[in-house]
Amino acid sequence: MTRDDKVRIGKQLEKLKVDVIEAGFAAASPGDFDAIRAVAEAVHDSTVCSLARANENDIRRAGEAVAPAKRKRIHTFIATSPIHMKLKLRMSEDQVLESAVRAVKLAREYTDDVEFSAEDAVRSETDFLCRIFEATIAAGARTINVPDTVGYSIPERWGHLFRTLLERIPNADKAIWSTHCHNDLGMAVANSLAAVMNGARQVECTINGLGERAGNASLEEIVMAVRTRADLFTCRTGIDATQIVPASKLVSTITGYPVQPNKAVVGANAFAHESGIHQDGVLKHRETYEIMRAEDVGWGANRLTLGKLSGRNAFKSRLSELGIALASEEALNAAFAKFKELADKKREIFDEDLQALVSDESVTPEHERFKLVSLVAHSETGEQPFARVVMADAGREMRAEARGAGPVDAAFQAVEDLVHSGTDLLLYSVNNITSGTDSQGEVTVRLAKDGRIVNGMGADTDIVVASVKAYLSALNKMGGKAERMNPQYGDETAAP
Amino acid sequence: MTRDDKVRIGKQLEKLKVDVIEAGFAAASPGDFDAIRAVAEAVHDSTVCSLARANENDIRRAGEAVAPAKRKRIHTFIATSPIHMKLKLRMSEDQVLESAVRAVKLAREYTDDVEFSAEDAVRSETDFLCRIFEATIAAGARTINVPDTVGYSIPERWGHLFRTLLERIPNADKAIWSTHCHNDLGMAVANSLAAVMNGARQVECTINGLGERAGNASLEEIVMAVRTRADLFTCRTGIDATQIVPASKLVSTITGYPVQPNKAVVGANAFAHESGIHQDGVLKHRETYEIMRAEDVGWGANRLTLGKLSGRNAFKSRLSELGIALASEEALNAAFAKFKELADKKREIFDEDLQALVSDESVTPEHERFKLVSLVAHSETGEQPFARVVMADAGREMRAEARGAGPVDAAFQAVEDLVHSGTDLLLYSVNNITSGTDSQGEVTVRLAKDGRIVNGMGADTDIVVASVKAYLSALNKMGGKAERMNPQYGDETAAP
Repeated sequence: MTRDDKVRIGKQLEKLKVDVIEAGFAAASPGDFDAIRAVAEAVHDSTVCSLARANENDIRRAGEAVAPAKRKRIHTFIATSPIHMKLKLRMSEDQVLESAVRAVKLAREYTDDVEFSAEDAVRSETDFLCRIFEATIAAGARTINVPDTVGYSIPERWGHLFRTLLERIPNADKAIWSTHCHNDLGMAVANSLAAVMNGARQVECTINGLGERAGNASLEEIVMAVRTRADLFTCRTGIDATQIVPASKLVSTITGYPVQPNKAVVGANAFAHESGIHQDGVLKHRETYEIMRAEDVGWGANRLTLGKLSGRNAFKSRLSELGIALASEEALNAAFAKFKELADKKREIFDEDLQALVSDESVTPEHERFKLVSLVAHSETGEQPFARVVMADAGREMRAEARGAGPVDAAFQAVEDLVHSGTDLLLYSVNNITSGTDSQGEVTVRLAKDGRIVNGMGADTDIVVASVKAYLSALNKMGGKAERMNPQYGDETAAP
Repeated sequence: MTRDDKVRIGKQLEKLKVDVIEAGFAAASPGDFDAIRAVAEAVHDSTVCSLARANENDIRRAGEAVAPAKRKRIHTFIATSPIHMKLKLRMSEDQVLESAVRAVKLAREYTDDVEFSAEDAVRSETDFLCRIFEATIAAGARTINVPDTVGYSIPERWGHLFRTLLERIPNADKAIWSTHCHNDLGMAVANSLAAVMNGARQVECTINGLGERAGNASLEEIVMAVRTRADLFTCRTGIDATQIVPASKLVSTITGYPVQPNKAVVGANAFAHESGIHQDGVLKHRETYEIMRAEDVGWGANRLTLGKLSGRNAFKSRLSELGIALASEEALNAAFAKFKELADKKREIFDEDLQALVSDESVTPEHERFKLVSLVAHSETGEQPFARVVMADAGREMRAEARGAGPVDAAFQAVEDLVHSGTDLLLYSVNNITSGTDSQGEVTVRLAKDGRIVNGMGADTDIVVASVKAYLSALNKMGGKAERMNPQYGDETAAP
């Protein structure tokens, strides 16, 4: 995600009224540092937090990154499980405990709001967890986070761990207890809620359940479970649930990760009743099969915002309402030109279209090496599809023609004839942004080379154009640093 | 799903070694009856089951549908919650109990293997559940299923309910206890496993967690949780886990429902490590962040199967290995012609390509009204995209040209100029079936009219062609009966 992407998501999370936004990991890269700082400047109501390993450099970077925030937090962590301490950190229990205490004290120099996490708590010794949590609370940590880093626990055990920690640690009442669960076995939400039942009052979760591997606990499921089962939970969240679906759509647009139709709460079918028996029941009495209402989580709020005749100011102010601040006048001009172009082709422009328009990375071409200039694509049953691509490489125009299995393949071949990237296409996916046949297609292209994987995105009402934009966006990113390794595709041994 | 789709999925479930395949609801429609019968004939190792309401007609239809199966089961159900009994069934507790007992006895005339479910058990009185389960076990039900029909429970409560039922019902040991959980609050898997911890020995679940609304418990998550946490579970499943990913891909192909990349076990990123810290840990020692291996669940088994030179027999026998039996010689010929066409365009043909090829509903054109004859699509930056469609309406050829926002829009407009369907496009999605730029695109189109919603699918290496096939497939289905109502799109009050 770019800095601007993070700011847009940050603004939406603020609308959703989340308590804390963990905006990134300041020491990971200068880009991450800048993004956290930009979120810290843009967001006022939610606390803004940076992650930091338990070392001086990480904590100082985190402290500097969140400095502009009205409410700021540093979240420092160190692994506490035997397997992590021995094989990854190569440190003893005492060394780990000492690092954690030193990290919390240093973080307190930047802010009173310090969170400490024991990474891989799920596989840690309870005795050691008690020692390290007691010591870090005494050192000034106000929030203690207990993560199931590998997505390994089950609710009964996870709830039991929280009960034990809260009972055994003498100063447990001086901290807010937090749970952070991964979904590798499908139990992130249930584990988080078991922790809440046993005293946790912070849940670390993500929109659409995104995150490392199988993802983290889904915010939308946690929030709606606590609300729907108010009979069981003695607490509540401050979330504005009507902002859930807009947040889900924004995150899906920006990450390029589609939401599965049967995803709880935010999936396209989450409130649909397929079978005749259920339909009959719903018609007779809604509550026979529905425990939540679609409108309560923001379905059906898709609003017409702008049309062909909207001017530059209306465009700019709508972007700003959506939390989109373009970096420069040039970028705004480029985006407005794209908006007029889109309004010529598409009858109605929705918020989602604007989101896609600015996600489309060709809006900020100044930073990028490859750029699409023009494209012709032709396909005809019985003949091989054909494409002609004119593109710029650092401003130098070049053109190629190719044939392929389809117009998208032909266009990709033409690009490859020019750039010889040597990449493999791992994933190609398209989502339409709004309904209607003139909707923009948003294409995600995932390319791999030498064990490195990058995602590119492009949006256009013409799917071939969107595809080429996405392909060029991915190639531009290939210029950057390693993003991921993925053993599912057989490159497990390739170092990033 | 068509009958052939169900048979293909049935054969794959058999490879996966599932104990029971619930193949449908025989009384729902003649199509469902035929599909169950076809699965009952094709599957030998797994038990084949039909659902039936607790009435004579449903049970007789179910009994006839599963008759050909080597192992057969009838699963009869009736609602037991006050809200369902009062508002949907308009029956008293005693009437419901009497219907259930009568249904089980009648089902036993067809097979010894009878399952009884108390629909909406989650909101039923425990006393009444004890009464009706004791009576149905006495009447001959061998499996007792306890469903969380609305996805409402939490693991602690759900486990407690099983413990209570097993303790209080005197003949509880005469039945196998089963759990059936929905995922509306994201806890279907955790609830199912809590039931297993408390005595359940059958879990009703689905591939990819598909199902009504937010879906059911995911088979893949249940299986891998029980296996990964063998330290906590005193039981095991007979599932061949290496068939999980092939089953997931097949179901996704046939239903047109994409799998979210961060879906546990079967998502494209489920085993990917994005952050530098995790990558470092994984390189040092795999188990620091991984609790399962990608290859154990069938990742990386994507096998090259056929090429350009493969003959008709090789093609037929590969289809049969995949559990695909085409209805007639004509259908086989049509599929083989499509295969040769595809092999001309695409260098390598994978199992997934064959699955898509036969899913592509134009393979069985005899049943369908609308059919694509030929297509020209042209797009050029700066001009309005153009398409010319030649299609047949019940054999009569017609043609139209149109311009649109993109080549797909233009082609859809051309079709609409010919058929004037009056439908709305709700969803348009594309997935590539295998990686590589010459991959086939598989398009799903969801159309709505008067509150009715249908899905159409099409596959082709040319995305515009695949789109038009999907559109025509959806229009063909619009000719059929109501499929769904969906309050998310504002048609809550429209009767199906």
